Amino acid sequence: MKLYTFFRSSAAFRVRIALNLKGLAYAPQPVSLPKGEHRRPEYAGANPQGLVPMLELDDGTRLNQSLAIIEFLDEKYAQPQLVPKDALGRARVRSLALLIACEIHPLNNLRTLNYLRKNLRLGDEQVNAWYRHWIAEGLAKLEAELTQTRGTGRFCHGDAPSMADCCLVPQIFNAKRYHCDLAPYPTVMRVFEQCMKLEAFERAQPSKQPDANEQETRH
Amino acid sequence: MKLYTFFRSSAAFRVRIALNLKGLAYAPQPVSLPKGEHRRPEYAGANPQGLVPMLELDDGTRLNQSLAIIEFLDEKYAQPQLVPKDALGRARVRSLALLIACEIHPLNNLRTLNYLRKNLRLGDEQVNAWYRHWIAEGLAKLEAELTQTRGTGRFCHGDAPSMADCCLVPQIFNAKRYHCDLAPYPTVMRVFEQCMKLEAFERAQPSKQPDANEQETRH
Repeated sequence: MKLYTFFRSSAAFRVRIALNLKGLAYAPQPVSLPKGEHRRPEYAGANPQGLVPMLELDDGTRLNQSLAIIEFLDEKYAQPQLVPKDALGRARVRSLALLIACEIHPLNNLRTLNYLRKNLRLGDEQVNAWYRHWIAEGLAKLEAELTQTRGTGRFCHGDAPSMADCCLVPQIFNAKRYHCDLAPYPTVMRVFEQCMKLEAFERAQPSKQPDANEQETRH
Repeated sequence: MKLYTFFRSSAAFRVRIALNLKGLAYAPQPVSLPKGEHRRPEYAGANPQGLVPMLELDDGTRLNQSLAIIEFLDEKYAQPQLVPKDALGRARVRSLALLIACEIHPLNNLRTLNYLRKNLRLGDEQVNAWYRHWIAEGLAKLEAELTQTRGTGRFCHGDAPSMADCCLVPQIFNAKRYHCDLAPYPTVMRVFEQCMKLEAFERAQPSKQPDANEQETRH
């Protein structure tokens, strides 16, 4: 399998974690978002969404959207399970994953920040305030979910990592990068620390990727 | 079942369509987002995410996040299928649904527009330009997916409605409300028109909801 990835992309980071948790080997194919490589015809032609990650199976089939890729991997390679078998557990894990994937990440990704900077001509202070606002709003909801709904264990759902944890960890990396105050989310951070003890998470982090030598500017 | 819903919420609209397609009766519980009813303790206490839609089962179990709810309904009430049975079909339908739910909708929902207006003090013209920008970017990707990847039929995937169509239709309602130019997306619009011939979609639209008498201001 090939994974089209960018070291800083938190959507790609989610899939890297899932692949590592499943013990699946893959060849990383770096696509630099700051250089606009995802918009070049050779990539956009193969991926109409023009986004990373994209997973290319050995038969050439291409899959995109991180949560759709993780669900596919979970259906094809059953162990360890990333989406539980019981109906309510499945709904809870998906809901936690979507809370991050829909309510936080889209507001803070590269093209959104580019629009703020280029089209709206916002300065660093306003862009950072925007970033931290959505992190704070979203993580407060995540903290509330983890503390108020049944199912939280050592990880987001039970005592083993799930698709929800695959989303939580990259989001916390982003939050740290923007120096967000994470003290208000002790349960989220407890789960984060638990995840980072696992080699599958640790090895998937941006700084460990082959394209991590890209410039370190915030984007 | 009770569905906590707001007539204009496109995430709630998705679930209304799914419930109608499945032929499931539900009691709508309107939650006015412009009035901030989702932030009141009686709602936020029951729903840590503080969002609509929320589906309350007859035993009191509460589910949130529209795509997690639709997947739950599809697993519990098999017919008609909203997520196909085959692995690649499942991945494609989820990818199309997530393209809308992650790449378009979060940038254009009420709280994002409120931030632009209140925190960044943008005027109507800039807010509308923002709205249309993300619609145009997202629908161009959706059009490319529907025309360039295999599987599109009368609907997004094959000849019956799926979870992807449950997402597509509300997004087009939003686009029309903001007078977006939809001419560049003929395949998307063909699927939209096809969906709207079905009573399940027609009956789920904002103007047919019991809380549709709310003020018509854009928010």
